[in-house]
Amino acid sequence: MSISLTILGCHSATPRINAFPTSQYLEINNSHFLIDCGEGTQRQMRKYKVGFSKINHIFITHLHGDHFYGLVGLLSTFGILNRDKELHIYGPKGIKEVTLLQLKISQSHAKYKMIFHELTSKKSELIFEDDKVSVSTIPLTHRVYTNGYLFKEKEKSRKLNMLNISGYSEIDKADYLNIKAGKDVVLSSGKIVFNTELTIDPPKPLSFAFCSDTCYKPDIVPIIKNVDLLYHEATFLDDRKDLAKKTKHATTKEAAQIAKDANAKQLIIGHYSGRYKDINVFKEEAQEIFENTELAVPGKVFIV
Amino acid sequence: MSISLTILGCHSATPRINAFPTSQYLEINNSHFLIDCGEGTQRQMRKYKVGFSKINHIFITHLHGDHFYGLVGLLSTFGILNRDKELHIYGPKGIKEVTLLQLKISQSHAKYKMIFHELTSKKSELIFEDDKVSVSTIPLTHRVYTNGYLFKEKEKSRKLNMLNISGYSEIDKADYLNIKAGKDVVLSSGKIVFNTELTIDPPKPLSFAFCSDTCYKPDIVPIIKNVDLLYHEATFLDDRKDLAKKTKHATTKEAAQIAKDANAKQLIIGHYSGRYKDINVFKEEAQEIFENTELAVPGKVFIV
Repeated sequence: MSISLTILGCHSATPRINAFPTSQYLEINNSHFLIDCGEGTQRQMRKYKVGFSKINHIFITHLHGDHFYGLVGLLSTFGILNRDKELHIYGPKGIKEVTLLQLKISQSHAKYKMIFHELTSKKSELIFEDDKVSVSTIPLTHRVYTNGYLFKEKEKSRKLNMLNISGYSEIDKADYLNIKAGKDVVLSSGKIVFNTELTIDPPKPLSFAFCSDTCYKPDIVPIIKNVDLLYHEATFLDDRKDLAKKTKHATTKEAAQIAKDANAKQLIIGHYSGRYKDINVFKEEAQEIFENTELAVPGKVFIV
Repeated sequence: MSISLTILGCHSATPRINAFPTSQYLEINNSHFLIDCGEGTQRQMRKYKVGFSKINHIFITHLHGDHFYGLVGLLSTFGILNRDKELHIYGPKGIKEVTLLQLKISQSHAKYKMIFHELTSKKSELIFEDDKVSVSTIPLTHRVYTNGYLFKEKEKSRKLNMLNISGYSEIDKADYLNIKAGKDVVLSSGKIVFNTELTIDPPKPLSFAFCSDTCYKPDIVPIIKNVDLLYHEATFLDDRKDLAKKTKHATTKEAAQIAKDANAKQLIIGHYSGRYKDINVFKEEAQEIFENTELAVPGKVFIV
């Protein structure tokens, strides 16, 4: 069980030479997800050796260009690469129409099936689940309808404590499934052997929350409580709190406050406004409130 | 009078780390044009210092993604940069609908007016003209409706030969306009002073032809006859002539043959297929037929 998060792009919309709009590649419990897809994401994927064929689920937070203008290019490329596995795309209502029109007009013929999951709810909802991972929305507040996403590993069964089990000759392999499921064992003598003696806690399921773009929104804290890794946008430093409020973005301090209140283990910030030359100041300012803060940088990989 | 052509991108569709889809920036007779706009073009413009505000006319050859998926991002950026000058966009029918839908869905509000000129004709037609430059279409044959573009400087008026004029005391400043326009002067003695004696030829108007994507199409030769600078796609080497035919692309030799038959001064080739590691072979092969061939490379500037 592990999380590996690769930053593909982490800057805000205005184009600059070494700036790339938002996109992240998440490996969690051996599942592979792409989150947001700004212009040029497919080139960043090549650069940082993200396997195109691994991705079966793409999550788009909102329909501002710097978060989805690279989607159609990637979908076209999947066609060129002869993809045949189906692909799931999650995003705000409207994403299907605009994407399909672009693909139609550019005559991008694809063998693979695209399944769009259009979101409209303003409440957190479970949108994907399999035996390894679940994904829920984190309703955010931005200038347009926006969702963050919470990725959680599934709870694993308890591990057998073979040393202790071997002390009870009566306990048989046939009991293991029940023991793993957390059940106590009643011996023929009537004695109860408690499950805690027979098992070890499984590794704690890990979680990652992606929160961008959004203004400071404390009511997301209960949704992301105790998250292992939190990406929260920090478009502005505290000096432009006024502009953050006006454009419905967050400041470094606000991102750090969310991380602190949510008891996150680690915070990554990004979506830096082009007005700042030195992004290290973002980290220093956030660390005043939440020490374990790191900067998103293209190509950087965060491992949990 | 001069031409300066900057290659922004020159590769075919499959994404690679150091490959950029088609886009070129043309300065001709102090006018500024963008030709094609693949994904990531706006970043390439920043990299090669192309002034965003100079561009008032964008020409899209065809609606394959690698030639226009970067357009909407650029138009959004114009909005972010508070552009207010109107912008003309030329391209195949359909470009307006898909572009406006994307801008609408991403709520990219712009102060400036976009004027779409949708093309449907299969014959060469004049689509833009002012006192400095004219632009005509070059009908190409590809898998979708495609036009190349021919950019021509306007013919300038003849230059006065002041040395010779000063030999005729009777010729007055009031006559200069007529002389520049090519008229002879009749002296009071009845003697005719021929215009060739009084004027010097103006600099020859320069021209640039952009031909991509297209199969080998010899019937474009009369349209681009004697062009100063010709960009012609060469997706494949001669070894994959079969594939060129199938995908309606051209080979190096075919591009060179067009340049030779059109009596072009210089040929630039590009749109290299990803299957070739070394693009120098493209140049060598084309030079077997047309010596003055150069390779398109991102950032390279061609001056005429």
